[in-house]
Amino acid sequence: MQGKQSISLKEPVYMNATASVVGKKEGEGPLGLLFDMVGEDDKFGAKTWEEAESELQKTAVYMTMQKAGIKAGDIRYLFAGDLLGQEMATSFGLESFEIPLFGLYGACSTCGESLSLGTMAVAGGFADQVICVTSSHFASAEKEFRFPLAYGNQRPLSACWTVTGSGAFLLGAVKCENTLAKITGITTGKIVDFGLKDSLNMGACMAPAAADLISTNFSDFGVGPEEYDKIITGDLGTVGQKILLDLLRDKGYDISDRHMDCGIEIYDAQTQDTHAGGSGCGCSAVTLSAYILKQLRDKNWKKILFIPTGALLSKVSFNEGNSVPGIAHGVVIEAL
Amino acid sequence: MQGKQSISLKEPVYMNATASVVGKKEGEGPLGLLFDMVGEDDKFGAKTWEEAESELQKTAVYMTMQKAGIKAGDIRYLFAGDLLGQEMATSFGLESFEIPLFGLYGACSTCGESLSLGTMAVAGGFADQVICVTSSHFASAEKEFRFPLAYGNQRPLSACWTVTGSGAFLLGAVKCENTLAKITGITTGKIVDFGLKDSLNMGACMAPAAADLISTNFSDFGVGPEEYDKIITGDLGTVGQKILLDLLRDKGYDISDRHMDCGIEIYDAQTQDTHAGGSGCGCSAVTLSAYILKQLRDKNWKKILFIPTGALLSKVSFNEGNSVPGIAHGVVIEAL
Repeated sequence: MQGKQSISLKEPVYMNATASVVGKKEGEGPLGLLFDMVGEDDKFGAKTWEEAESELQKTAVYMTMQKAGIKAGDIRYLFAGDLLGQEMATSFGLESFEIPLFGLYGACSTCGESLSLGTMAVAGGFADQVICVTSSHFASAEKEFRFPLAYGNQRPLSACWTVTGSGAFLLGAVKCENTLAKITGITTGKIVDFGLKDSLNMGACMAPAAADLISTNFSDFGVGPEEYDKIITGDLGTVGQKILLDLLRDKGYDISDRHMDCGIEIYDAQTQDTHAGGSGCGCSAVTLSAYILKQLRDKNWKKILFIPTGALLSKVSFNEGNSVPGIAHGVVIEAL
Repeated sequence: MQGKQSISLKEPVYMNATASVVGKKEGEGPLGLLFDMVGEDDKFGAKTWEEAESELQKTAVYMTMQKAGIKAGDIRYLFAGDLLGQEMATSFGLESFEIPLFGLYGACSTCGESLSLGTMAVAGGFADQVICVTSSHFASAEKEFRFPLAYGNQRPLSACWTVTGSGAFLLGAVKCENTLAKITGITTGKIVDFGLKDSLNMGACMAPAAADLISTNFSDFGVGPEEYDKIITGDLGTVGQKILLDLLRDKGYDISDRHMDCGIEIYDAQTQDTHAGGSGCGCSAVTLSAYILKQLRDKNWKKILFIPTGALLSKVSFNEGNSVPGIAHGVVIEAL
């Protein structure tokens, strides 16, 4: 154990398989060719947007097990979550696997939360293999947090575009033939609230939490930006990125030469009209699954700090005039 | 490790302190005198029902730390959740403590989920002390899941009454002077769906998951009902209890002589007009905190199986005609 918010693992936890499933728009983006499955339309054969998101999770978990050549009975726990009220996508998407389930909620940081708790379960000797999975869907998220699509509201340039996608990760105590990378540490975030109230500027709401998490990781481990080849946030977008870099400069850290944001990478903002970038707990998950882990597997990067960021927003809290607090969960991932 | 869904701990995790905060109605119930704090009115000084629920969590955590003579900085993680969309009560209630937070969602089973993951964190050597806290509030829950109170809808006799309350638990690796009991095992539930669709009959929706969890615990540990002095479900109520006992009889187990349900204990259904009983993730939490742990501390019970039960319901899934799947998380708690 190390620091107050960070854990350095004695034995690494291996990321032995992963799968990513995304919607049409994500498939047309810069990372399009890297995803395991791209839906022809965003309903994924379901009747509702919520069921479509359930399909995303179900497919991502199924493909992950298939790639690893294992079945549901081999998985001890699922650590899963989504953005919808009462985790609808997770409840109905993962039901059929009949695997013991821990439902999680960290807004868009849930991918980092699930990897952190999954890592603890494996590293603590409570599980040989677990699957961590998160999802988001543009249409179900707009309906849940802002306006139904049919309302056709205008989106300011600070708005993010919720990624339609799900990424699943098989964590194991033992390396396998196709192991992609290893988790060697985690830094768990606390709620950080700068009092911002704009549900159409999530990046600004989450940036302070990301800055706090990154500087805490540095101090807990006694390192600086140079410790990592990349420092990757989940979905700050262009607006949030600028704020993050400024906040860290105030803390004496310059990560501008190695910072990457999944929300900025996943779309071409110019041609895809996604404004500030992608968001949602599918955003960081599918980018880690399809792009980041391949860079680590191919040794292009040796060590990264992966930080999914979440805005703790609800329709009710927003309508009651509350601020939008942020939270971020960091995972240290290294090449084998 | 033992069984596919259960863990037997090599070293127990100690429940070193607890606090319970409830509303007026709960204070007037059979357990009223046992709670640490009873609100004079259910707004707890807040402007909205949601903020009132946040106050419940904040107060329960604060009192738990106070009883243990520790401060927020001594707590490594919070494992917390509530029933509201995007965990509103948790986000705004726990923000000020600035403790690394894992947000959880298991509907009314979240108390069991938080104790399970908190136990793993401590038993795995990742934390010396953690606090697990959950809450529910009658008014915020009715608004979230059914109808705003002002609508004045009729409640069928199968309906449960969501408990206004929050219970917090300090788990530690080391015993202290006032340790109440110890956690020696956990059984993690999977989603069980019998296809029921009645949001005003949660007991029936959750009973199958509870029956599955209890029989799994028995088979994983190779024991029967006689292993436990009490087998305590979270909030099945009178309707769910009957179904649970029937389902377990079909599996060859009779637990009728030792089954207790927090939802049945917390109110006097006759005089308090609570119909089938209490529910909500505050129900099992405050009953464990105020009543069950005292029985273990005083050695009236030596070993119990505590099973908070959750109905994975959302307003959207209900309105879209989906069923209400159930999940339950079991914790084995023993006297010192």
